[in-house]
Amino acid sequence: MNRFADRAAETLAAVRENRPLIHNITNFVVMNYTANALLAMGASPVMAHGINEVEEMAALAGALVLNIGTLTEEWVAAMIRAGKKASELGKPVVLDPVGAGATRLRTASAKQIIEQVRVRTVRGNASEILALETRDATTRGVDSVHSVEDVAGTGSAMADALKTTLAITGPTDFITDGNRVLRVANGHPLMARITGTGCTATAIVGAFSAIDDDPVCAAASALAFFGLAGEVAAQHASAPGSCMIQLLDALYTVTPEDLKAGARIREAR
Amino acid sequence: MNRFADRAAETLAAVRENRPLIHNITNFVVMNYTANALLAMGASPVMAHGINEVEEMAALAGALVLNIGTLTEEWVAAMIRAGKKASELGKPVVLDPVGAGATRLRTASAKQIIEQVRVRTVRGNASEILALETRDATTRGVDSVHSVEDVAGTGSAMADALKTTLAITGPTDFITDGNRVLRVANGHPLMARITGTGCTATAIVGAFSAIDDDPVCAAASALAFFGLAGEVAAQHASAPGSCMIQLLDALYTVTPEDLKAGARIREAR
Amino acid sequence: MNRFADRAAETLAAVRENRPLIHNITNFVVMNYTANALLAMGASPVMAHGINEVEEMAALAGALVLNIGTLTEEWVAAMIRAGKKASELGKPVVLDPVGAGATRLRTASAKQIIEQVRVRTVRGNASEILALETRDATTRGVDSVHSVEDVAGTGSAMADALKTTLAITGPTDFITDGNRVLRVANGHPLMARITGTGCTATAIVGAFSAIDDDPVCAAASALAFFGLAGEVAAQHASAPGSCMIQLLDALYTVTPEDLKAGARIREAR
Repeated sequence: MNRFADRAAETLAAVRENRPLIHNITNFVVMNYTANALLAMGASPVMAHGINEVEEMAALAGALVLNIGTLTEEWVAAMIRAGKKASELGKPVVLDPVGAGATRLRTASAKQIIEQVRVRTVRGNASEILALETRDATTRGVDSVHSVEDVAGTGSAMADALKTTLAITGPTDFITDGNRVLRVANGHPLMARITGTGCTATAIVGAFSAIDDDPVCAAASALAFFGLAGEVAAQHASAPGSCMIQLLDALYTVTPEDLKAGARIREAR
Repeated sequence: MNRFADRAAETLAAVRENRPLIHNITNFVVMNYTANALLAMGASPVMAHGINEVEEMAALAGALVLNIGTLTEEWVAAMIRAGKKASELGKPVVLDPVGAGATRLRTASAKQIIEQVRVRTVRGNASEILALETRDATTRGVDSVHSVEDVAGTGSAMADALKTTLAITGPTDFITDGNRVLRVANGHPLMARITGTGCTATAIVGAFSAIDDDPVCAAASALAFFGLAGEVAAQHASAPGSCMIQLLDALYTVTPEDLKAGARIREAR
Repeated sequence: MNRFADRAAETLAAVRENRPLIHNITNFVVMNYTANALLAMGASPVMAHGINEVEEMAALAGALVLNIGTLTEEWVAAMIRAGKKASELGKPVVLDPVGAGATRLRTASAKQIIEQVRVRTVRGNASEILALETRDATTRGVDSVHSVEDVAGTGSAMADALKTTLAITGPTDFITDGNRVLRVANGHPLMARITGTGCTATAIVGAFSAIDDDPVCAAASALAFFGLAGEVAAQHASAPGSCMIQLLDALYTVTPEDLKAGARIREAR
């Protein structure tokens, strides 16, 4: 138990009380699962990508989650339009640069969104985050070829340069706004065998960001919660299909008290 | 047991015997789940939205289900083209105006479909249905901010004006063609924590409409069946992930006899 | 136990060791499920359809899977572009002509892909495969109206004419390159009640094709593995929802030794 765990518990309780509307412009693969995850945890998800409705939807929402997992230029344009509106209204925007580093379109689109939208938090794996700044980072499809520790050294400088909070996930997550660094040790290896757990983590960062204005704390709280839910799920399931379902259940059953007791968030550096 | 329950049981048996092809033009979030629901209950789902194939597919189908959950103008155009062909061939068209009231695009698209297509039944929550007629209804993302009872008073007049059957779902569903009113009391609160249960209800209304030409009975039967399956699922699951899977199972295992015994359909007014 | 079963076991072990990247351009309905299936079995899935990134992604991948389940012209263009790049680089391309025979767009698109791309293997049901050559084959939505045995007589000539390997699935699968014929007897009837099992079979053929250069053996091994996983799943589940999840679990838990013992592959003709 520590003040970060306390804060995570408070934010979770507030999400469940306020049921913030989370507007997602995300990829086709994970739309159903992330919507179910947000709904199970107590938020209210909506998916909307039409260029002629994203501004209105973003204006209704408590947070906007952008995810380039199955992108085309049209979708990126809608993301930027929604992102600008959300920024303008002071709403948090969370970006998941899925597969940045794998293709030029993905890398360029992620960078373009960061340049044009006030992105509060970027959640990605190490390769995806590295691809946002360096020219030579490569991502294997959507899987990281780098470890979190490969970014730990330069993460703060990158967050500074990109003017955003970075939440880099792996066995131990690394969150920094360029100044503070938090590490989160929750999670379970079986989560990596479930499609879209990274994207779901990002959506949950969105839900916590709708409540907690401190981007570093919001991301750490969200990742601790999601990781703890994964730990609970893995106690009840030893293969990916069952674990995927147990994970949705755990997002519903894990209480703020459980989170206070189980969050493993610590300050680093 | 009553004649409505008997009819629901007969229609379910006929769906399973005839396996009607249900053509869905629906949203990305629920495509997989609604296809699985239709398949589990005994219908044959197909998803097809390409402007150059929707007429042929609609012509093959026993019913057409239109759902604007993740709409763009192109998809609405395909919906209208498919809907006109289905209307022309006398096939039932069921519309789910997901999020009508939340954005102008959704409200306008739902109205446009109703104007241009002979929609047999509209299935929505109270806010979505209110948004089809009044100017000031608002929907919070895809969640209702009104109760079914808010529409009960004006529902019949709305059905008359819109020349369709309205199936408004909530704790107790309200179905009217402007003349008759049926109420359905099946269901379970946990269903609201599963993404796409509203959309799935609509798809099942489509399957029942492929068999039963009376739109009020088809909708009431479908909602009683889906609600009963939810009740069965909630007996085996206490959290949304497991419930979602148990619900698919129940759509497969609930028999016409179960439905005859468990359907809670009554005439109102 | 036979040499085909031995080979299937070896290929499965190699998939798990090498985790080949499988690039899928597939339909909206099954994206999540097939990604989960590939991930559970030990491959690395990526879904990418943007015309401006498919060539790069195909170049990174070990195999390309094309699936026309919810097609539009734009998607077919991306499939052909990706397919040409993959062919050029000598990578296996596997095609699933979902619903060929149901609409002209589907039939024409499947044929166009076969003409313009060096397709190593086509996996489909009997009606879909027949639609690739004959003018009068019809498919009911995405369900076969023909049996595998309807194609057995002409399958080899069709494979010859189409210059590809055909993997026609049903109660007993039929695989031929025009010369050899293998039959696979694994599987369970409940699989037909789960949306996207055909598409998932195709994706798994893709994963095996990334390892085994012999298209007939790769397809037979993949279908035996997937069918065996279905048999294992059906031992633990008697309804489609649970079976769908158990199937993902079985793709993770079935070992090469299990496959060696359980694969029912035999040479025919």
